[in-house]
Amino acid sequence: MRGAVLYGAGDLRFEERDAPTIIKPTDALIRMAATCVCGSDLWPYRGLQAIAEPTPMGHEYCGVVEEVGSAVRTVKPGQFVIASFFASDNTCPHCRAGYQSSCQQREFVGGAQAPMLRVPLADGTLVATPEVPSDDLIPSLLALSDVMGTGWFAADAANVKPGATVAVVGDGAVGLLGILSAKIMGAERIIAMSRHEHRQRLAREFGATDIVIERGDEGVARIKDMTDGVGPDSVLECVGTQESMQQAIHSVRPGGSVGYVGVPHGVELSGQELFYAHVHLHGGPAPVRRYLPDLIKQVWERRINPGRVFDLTLPLAQVAEAYRAMDERRAIKTLLRP
Amino acid sequence: MRGAVLYGAGDLRFEERDAPTIIKPTDALIRMAATCVCGSDLWPYRGLQAIAEPTPMGHEYCGVVEEVGSAVRTVKPGQFVIASFFASDNTCPHCRAGYQSSCQQREFVGGAQAPMLRVPLADGTLVATPEVPSDDLIPSLLALSDVMGTGWFAADAANVKPGATVAVVGDGAVGLLGILSAKIMGAERIIAMSRHEHRQRLAREFGATDIVIERGDEGVARIKDMTDGVGPDSVLECVGTQESMQQAIHSVRPGGSVGYVGVPHGVELSGQELFYAHVHLHGGPAPVRRYLPDLIKQVWERRINPGRVFDLTLPLAQVAEAYRAMDERRAIKTLLRP
Repeated sequence: MRGAVLYGAGDLRFEERDAPTIIKPTDALIRMAATCVCGSDLWPYRGLQAIAEPTPMGHEYCGVVEEVGSAVRTVKPGQFVIASFFASDNTCPHCRAGYQSSCQQREFVGGAQAPMLRVPLADGTLVATPEVPSDDLIPSLLALSDVMGTGWFAADAANVKPGATVAVVGDGAVGLLGILSAKIMGAERIIAMSRHEHRQRLAREFGATDIVIERGDEGVARIKDMTDGVGPDSVLECVGTQESMQQAIHSVRPGGSVGYVGVPHGVELSGQELFYAHVHLHGGPAPVRRYLPDLIKQVWERRINPGRVFDLTLPLAQVAEAYRAMDERRAIKTLLRP
Repeated sequence: MRGAVLYGAGDLRFEERDAPTIIKPTDALIRMAATCVCGSDLWPYRGLQAIAEPTPMGHEYCGVVEEVGSAVRTVKPGQFVIASFFASDNTCPHCRAGYQSSCQQREFVGGAQAPMLRVPLADGTLVATPEVPSDDLIPSLLALSDVMGTGWFAADAANVKPGATVAVVGDGAVGLLGILSAKIMGAERIIAMSRHEHRQRLAREFGATDIVIERGDEGVARIKDMTDGVGPDSVLECVGTQESMQQAIHSVRPGGSVGYVGVPHGVELSGQELFYAHVHLHGGPAPVRRYLPDLIKQVWERRINPGRVFDLTLPLAQVAEAYRAMDERRAIKTLLRP
């Protein structure tokens, strides 16, 4: 089969790879219905995160179970499934506490930008839809695999409550779906930080009530100004840079919460600054598995449409163009059809 | 009047100072029933925190209202009052959110190691007891002014819940009262980190079920070991050094909470480390005012005895010896009687 392999900065190839097979009795093989490119794929693509060797890319996926190992009990060939980028047993103490992305048996699922994928710990990891979905639901179901689950975790980690004032730092797919999540959780005012008109439109569609185009200290000042000098109750940090983290921490009200899901790159936080900010800080790799049953239900009942973040669809063979379009910010997120 | 003034590292003098007077109509003057030396007073006393000029010391106090400004409505001369080291109006948005120590009018109350003290924002700051207390209640009421309120906040910020496993880093007065707080909040297992026998005894009296004497990575390993490799649900960080913060963050279970109240000195946290630790982090200067009504009730009904942390009582005139005894760890905390 042919799949996406990253060789180095800007060097993404669609090339022949060995098709995956069942290795452990707890594995499943998935035939991809759709996959996509993640904002976090851009870190190594841009050379900002080293890779040791040519690396099969992609960790967002949904599709039909093709084959299961001998120990798999809860999923069957023919079922349509969605899962997170971290495989988890869903039974260890961390999973039971709702932190499946810290599962004691955690395994990163890579190489999903391909027609077939091996998923470890299938029973714990895969969540089946009620039946095979109609084609128009595929983008929204695929979004649950990472970006929607991550945006939801950002809002959850930021303690978004009904009536809350929320700010969202980052207008990528995760930030935009953080807005949607905050809206569903009952936020009354949602301030999106974005300077791109196309993304601002989608932000408003998802529930943003205000747009702030300023960044850094100016962005903080603008947000304080809009909130009578108090600051939002919750800030979702969906970027992962020093500037974006500081913007979030400096904006939030004392006693408020920052939920951070952008993978931190070079972020150092001053203990004293955090101390006097009186901030609640929580984040990490989103425990997407925790949210999947509920989010699948919301998509299935057509209450939410997170697939709106895909503004470009390409055949899998054009995966290199998918990376370029996102790198150049021509696309928010690219869906790939095998 | 004579009070404590710090001139530099190790140079604490008991000397003549101007007696305070009402400056603003919202002020009150308090005649001290008791005051004490705080662990945080030791930072500048040890030369680890610069002071710009000779500084009147002390920020823990309780006593009888002597005089109030013309705008003061809720407290009257003759009432016995307790209050936090931060004066607060108790009406601004931050106060109403329960973060009085981030009050928009916040003012640090210093110079309490003296017979008389001016307290700003008296209506918002001072909390009166039902009547003038009997003498044996004074130590426990005084403890509410800082260390008990701060230990309580550490446990609250660390989300201590009934049945929880809790670890406490730091065996000073705040750490010990963090143990008491966790116990009252229903923690089932409380691991105290202490290598001093005298403090271990008090830790056990307050509710500690286990003692760990190891520190740093060894301390973390020991705690993981005691919790089947999972880690405590809540960790109270009551020191404020890089080592103690790291110990707390590395110990807690994924999805667990670190409540930190030790004023950070030179603490830098790696964003990536926090991210993958999946920790909830919350802390800061304790909003003692929020907890005072409830804690006063608990002391008044003799349900708690936080005054047990005072293991040395001296006349105020011997305040220099009070600092020495704490600096040399001969005393956990010294109570001073004017």
